Amino acid sequence: MRYNHQEVKDFTANIFVAMGCPANDADVIADVLIAAELRGIPSHGLMRVNDYYQMAKSGRINTSPVISKEHETPSTATVNGDNSFGPITAKKSMEIAIEKAKVAGTGWVATNNSNHYGIAGYYSMMALEHDMIGVSLTNANPLVSPTDSISRMLGTNPVAVAIPAQKYPPFVADFATAPVARGKLALKSRAGQSVPFGLVQDKVGSPSNNPGVLEQGGAILTLGGDIEHGGHKGYCMSALVDIFSSVLSGANFGPFVPPQVAYLPLLNESVGKGLGHFFGAIRVDAFRPVSEFKKSMDKWIETFQGALAKKERTVLIPGEPEREYEKKFIKEGIPIVPSVYNDICNISSELGVPSL
Amino acid sequence: MRYNHQEVKDFTANIFVAMGCPANDADVIADVLIAAELRGIPSHGLMRVNDYYQMAKSGRINTSPVISKEHETPSTATVNGDNSFGPITAKKSMEIAIEKAKVAGTGWVATNNSNHYGIAGYYSMMALEHDMIGVSLTNANPLVSPTDSISRMLGTNPVAVAIPAQKYPPFVADFATAPVARGKLALKSRAGQSVPFGLVQDKVGSPSNNPGVLEQGGAILTLGGDIEHGGHKGYCMSALVDIFSSVLSGANFGPFVPPQVAYLPLLNESVGKGLGHFFGAIRVDAFRPVSEFKKSMDKWIETFQGALAKKERTVLIPGEPEREYEKKFIKEGIPIVPSVYNDICNISSELGVPSL
Repeated sequence: MRYNHQEVKDFTANIFVAMGCPANDADVIADVLIAAELRGIPSHGLMRVNDYYQMAKSGRINTSPVISKEHETPSTATVNGDNSFGPITAKKSMEIAIEKAKVAGTGWVATNNSNHYGIAGYYSMMALEHDMIGVSLTNANPLVSPTDSISRMLGTNPVAVAIPAQKYPPFVADFATAPVARGKLALKSRAGQSVPFGLVQDKVGSPSNNPGVLEQGGAILTLGGDIEHGGHKGYCMSALVDIFSSVLSGANFGPFVPPQVAYLPLLNESVGKGLGHFFGAIRVDAFRPVSEFKKSMDKWIETFQGALAKKERTVLIPGEPEREYEKKFIKEGIPIVPSVYNDICNISSELGVPSL
Repeated sequence: MRYNHQEVKDFTANIFVAMGCPANDADVIADVLIAAELRGIPSHGLMRVNDYYQMAKSGRINTSPVISKEHETPSTATVNGDNSFGPITAKKSMEIAIEKAKVAGTGWVATNNSNHYGIAGYYSMMALEHDMIGVSLTNANPLVSPTDSISRMLGTNPVAVAIPAQKYPPFVADFATAPVARGKLALKSRAGQSVPFGLVQDKVGSPSNNPGVLEQGGAILTLGGDIEHGGHKGYCMSALVDIFSSVLSGANFGPFVPPQVAYLPLLNESVGKGLGHFFGAIRVDAFRPVSEFKKSMDKWIETFQGALAKKERTVLIPGEPEREYEKKFIKEGIPIVPSVYNDICNISSELGVPSL
């Protein structure tokens, strides 16, 4: 079934108000989750409402947070999210980065004491209307093994960067630094399908094509896979996202990142405050006049659109597929699968929120 | 044969003085090239002396550059390298980033009109003695095809990030965003060996294990390889390095990056000035007190050193292998292969420089 995105957003916001969030905060969370649905990333959309709800219900989220700056310089700030739902703290952090950039040319915010923040791209895209490049990184629960290891040490640690253009829509890269998402593996596993070698390993570190390997002590490999395929470069990328999100902010890193689902117990050891993010805002006119930059970016996009495609393929500019989904789903409504629909209906009736 | 690194450095500097470089500039170039040798990356070391020499000889390098700031804000600058040898402009750009960071918390420099700058890590490591994180990116000649394309559009576009710790040596990631370097393919090809699938494709975009494919119209794949292995994420990474190095600075991007060897003709079309880099310096105390940050970074390193290794493997912290080479080569001398030795001897005799 398909549902009007505005109605789903209002419904979702009402759920978060009923959980105890101020109306503004509830709107932000709903906007971030529905943005994921619209952009064709349902793994970060309504599917998360139940996780967020169970986390709040078990007292693992502060629904009335006081978000604060712990430290700042002209181009930086460290933000403490007061254990809020991630989207609230993340949006506030990105706003601070943008304000810093207005004065200093660039703004960089390291955020601690936060939680799962939805799609990374949401925050990077906030910079676009200010003629800025936006950057958004976060760490996440450990599922990925470093090169030559069998321990799960890193999350799928996404990188999102949004870059404005003039004639063309912006370049929006929003990608995990691991080759495959947990959700995709779960879907393949349920369907009884295998995955290509080079994405996961079993518990002793042997190559595997079994998508159910995570439930059996296995791990996701870094981008690239084994060392012969450059997997150590993927390890570096993922480690950098982790360090910027956590060591710089004072949040938990690597295997210490707190689980973002209520059915997994909190860890005994903590090495920082909550989960961490890192944000950047870069005024393009801190380097070149905006018009020159955008003209050059248009030319970049045209050049890459002009690349020769393999037979029956298309060379894409990052952000294009998500934009196509958005157009379609705004017009036709968001598709919600029955299991997610049932979950959110149960939550709304439990909380006394009018049903969708 | 092995040669004392200090003697080789002096010899190399003399070669660049004989090419017309001021003594200080020659020292910088020699230091960057020898740093590559010491760190076990000979592809970016003395092997480049001949390329640099031929470029200068054919008038494609300005040996008396006046490097200038084109634009600046409190945390940023755009630097024009005046078509210098890359290392001179790159070092100067990183120094500016560090000075900006001292005042604004972070400093970011986009550099145009430069050339091949050696190892990316050299510049990122300059930040360490200031208790800063250093960032260094550059674009490079196109050898890599975007996902689903058969055109060569991107360089191996490296990312280098150096992060200080206290008890342990710094974390130094310095990696190409492509899965394999051209030099490594050339070695395999000469040895008549194949490479694993997932690194290169032939001229119609079919999977290949032939390391000689670049000479036959083929291309290097992005990190991850095909889309099923997350290669589109590697494409995003590489594209970001290109855009930051070129669109932000006003340099040439993608397929327009000028060849960094004299035997390839200059391109007819230019979309900017020379080759581009991007540098960052981040004061760690712009986010947290230095002692807290370093303690946390030590814990990060210990945690990842403690990851369980696969049988007969070791889990490495980025920067460790290069540090081992450096220790060994400082003590035992730098190994120089006969072909490179002959090249530099020929150049020195051509220029009237005392031989090594």
